[in-house]
Amino acid sequence: MTELRYDTVTLLTDYGLADGWVGVMHSVIRQLSPGVGIVDLAHQIAPFDVRGGSLLLARSVQYLCPGVIVAVVDPGVGTQRRAIAVEVAGGAAVLVGPDNGLLAPAVGMLGGAERAVVLDRTDFHLPTASTTFDGRDVFAPVAAHLCRGVPLDEVGTPVDSATLLPGVVPLSRDEGGAIVAEVIWVDRFGNVQLNVQPDEIEGWDTRVVADLGRTRRRLRRVSAFAQVPTGDLGVLIDASGMLAIVADRSSAAEELGLGIGDAITLSPSGDEDSAPVTSSVTSSVSLGRRPT
Amino acid sequence: MTELRYDTVTLLTDYGLADGWVGVMHSVIRQLSPGVGIVDLAHQIAPFDVRGGSLLLARSVQYLCPGVIVAVVDPGVGTQRRAIAVEVAGGAAVLVGPDNGLLAPAVGMLGGAERAVVLDRTDFHLPTASTTFDGRDVFAPVAAHLCRGVPLDEVGTPVDSATLLPGVVPLSRDEGGAIVAEVIWVDRFGNVQLNVQPDEIEGWDTRVVADLGRTRRRLRRVSAFAQVPTGDLGVLIDASGMLAIVADRSSAAEELGLGIGDAITLSPSGDEDSAPVTSSVTSSVSLGRRPT
Amino acid sequence: MTELRYDTVTLLTDYGLADGWVGVMHSVIRQLSPGVGIVDLAHQIAPFDVRGGSLLLARSVQYLCPGVIVAVVDPGVGTQRRAIAVEVAGGAAVLVGPDNGLLAPAVGMLGGAERAVVLDRTDFHLPTASTTFDGRDVFAPVAAHLCRGVPLDEVGTPVDSATLLPGVVPLSRDEGGAIVAEVIWVDRFGNVQLNVQPDEIEGWDTRVVADLGRTRRRLRRVSAFAQVPTGDLGVLIDASGMLAIVADRSSAAEELGLGIGDAITLSPSGDEDSAPVTSSVTSSVSLGRRPT
Repeated sequence: MTELRYDTVTLLTDYGLADGWVGVMHSVIRQLSPGVGIVDLAHQIAPFDVRGGSLLLARSVQYLCPGVIVAVVDPGVGTQRRAIAVEVAGGAAVLVGPDNGLLAPAVGMLGGAERAVVLDRTDFHLPTASTTFDGRDVFAPVAAHLCRGVPLDEVGTPVDSATLLPGVVPLSRDEGGAIVAEVIWVDRFGNVQLNVQPDEIEGWDTRVVADLGRTRRRLRRVSAFAQVPTGDLGVLIDASGMLAIVADRSSAAEELGLGIGDAITLSPSGDEDSAPVTSSVTSSVSLGRRPT
Repeated sequence: MTELRYDTVTLLTDYGLADGWVGVMHSVIRQLSPGVGIVDLAHQIAPFDVRGGSLLLARSVQYLCPGVIVAVVDPGVGTQRRAIAVEVAGGAAVLVGPDNGLLAPAVGMLGGAERAVVLDRTDFHLPTASTTFDGRDVFAPVAAHLCRGVPLDEVGTPVDSATLLPGVVPLSRDEGGAIVAEVIWVDRFGNVQLNVQPDEIEGWDTRVVADLGRTRRRLRRVSAFAQVPTGDLGVLIDASGMLAIVADRSSAAEELGLGIGDAITLSPSGDEDSAPVTSSVTSSVSLGRRPT
Repeated sequence: MTELRYDTVTLLTDYGLADGWVGVMHSVIRQLSPGVGIVDLAHQIAPFDVRGGSLLLARSVQYLCPGVIVAVVDPGVGTQRRAIAVEVAGGAAVLVGPDNGLLAPAVGMLGGAERAVVLDRTDFHLPTASTTFDGRDVFAPVAAHLCRGVPLDEVGTPVDSATLLPGVVPLSRDEGGAIVAEVIWVDRFGNVQLNVQPDEIEGWDTRVVADLGRTRRRLRRVSAFAQVPTGDLGVLIDASGMLAIVADRSSAAEELGLGIGDAITLSPSGDEDSAPVTSSVTSSVSLGRRPT
């Protein structure tokens, strides 16, 4: 067996698990680069939800194995949209997928694109008449070839990374001391992730007011779900380092009627009994975070 | 470690992922044949849907790794229905599962059964009093033993492959120039796969009329989802090489109220502005399709 | 590569597959202990359902690979609840997870805790400010270190296993010859698993009466789903060795309106044409059950 250049391919798609497509991608990779391990990061991105997929990838990327990361949420498959591979972090990883902004936030978190190619060398694709399944026909085989050590500039034509489509990362904004935010994820437990970093509420007190337009709720700052009294809501720094509205053993999203993309304004409560909180979260992000 | 005869087991079941059964099958295989890789093709076949499982397997099989393929959609488990293993493609693969037609279309696509055995050698099964989980007790251990090099005719008694239950592959038919077809799959995106090969509409023009009984729709021939104008419907050659009715970033199945098994009649539109189309899709099917 | 102490990590969580958390756990384990195989037993335990998770684990454990078993259903994450690792079966396996009863039934089935530690050595955790994702930050890295051969008493402080929280295993009871039972699982097919062992109905005849309070149903004793006449219900010894109420190609749970936790009383039918049945199921439980 050839020595592998990369030993892991991580996959993220909106393919779901019901149609067999992910298993086919595994099969293609396994045949072209025996010995490579495959990690399924997520396959249930909402159909066509490029932004949702890009945020999940960005949120997870610092924990992923060095290697090739294939992401496919690709409503433009079969059109002139480009298929790309982007090298980051001194070659520690290559991200492969459509050039529609899906990869961009993760690339940014890993320090930006160092080299990029357009995947136009069809001899590294599967021979097929199909135009609708580039996950199988283009991205999986290219990932496998990269693992086997085919150089980046052989699988495609170099392209200026400044021409790659940027991602859409919704930013919160300050409005007279309040933060106008947006729901960027609702997880399986109904936790509501906001596009707000902990340092944006640095110095605020132990209660935060959430204004949803039709309703206002007081949120208790906590560091564990179980610290939220039953029926109450809390806000904590979640596992991705973002603020999230949470409940104890129930769904905050359901309680508030919130979904991805909804607006929400946070402000300090001004309660007298509520002491200022100092947060100290900073994470330098690098691929393959390990214990020291 | 013994040299492996096969290094991959591919799994397809209707077990779902919630009950732990697939994980148990992995555990059984891993213990009996260390070093074998396991690919999960699909586990969310609708409960008891032998035909649906057989079609998904047939659709995927040309991309699967050489090795053992275990398929279990098995409402007759515990009865006299036979458990079988079928060798195909000069020994490149062995398909293992119940003899209820589930394996048949894939076996056919791979050139037909070369040897078949009935899995009646219980010393290659797990010792169990259970009668309802042959995936764990019969098929997984037999697959593992085959990987380890146990010859096919040791895991069971040879049987004439002509006695194996055939699969049910619904065929379309020509009716006065129109094609009477059937929906054979609806995927996660709502794409509607028909039992129609591209050459059946060879020479038709760029628009196709779909008659659903209660309604008729004009479909534009496209090669990418994004070529379908918003609100419109298209027809393309899908990734399995079959005709599918599609929409752009929405569900054609929902739009048309179509589900698996529904009838649909296709005919040429006869539009003056619609030019004949020549399709050139032919795929010779072999296991482990690779780039040239 | 270092010789591995354990070569398999088995995972059970209530994380679901949509949020990327399971993929992140795979990534963490893979980086810290290259070469270890990971088996996904189940990730769709109902959110916060410690009992459901503990029962699925106990039901499956005899089939799992020797190695490290990580189970995370953990509504108390971030609080003072302890994180633990429990060695069983002469060191054949270590179970890792929260000390909330989740591991207890499986530990019991494997002969009881031989050694236990509280996971308080943070140098074996991921460095993080997060308090809500111990699956990633504590359990996955500890599992990986155990696989690499770090001794149990280095990853945590030994603790008397008598202080570990016991599991909640609902027991059936005899009431004047009838068995007052409870639904402990409903699987994907709608089979209704009861907390009743086959020997509890030893000597009963071929029909069993199920009293659901509002309704009574006669159940035919069968050993295969297909032996149940259409529209009828049966009772069989399921693949876990428990009694289950089943139907043929339809959902017994739906037919009876039963869900997990519901009460049900079984009694012999007293039919004249119904002969006594002798069951002979006994399973000694050990990890890594293999064919003889």
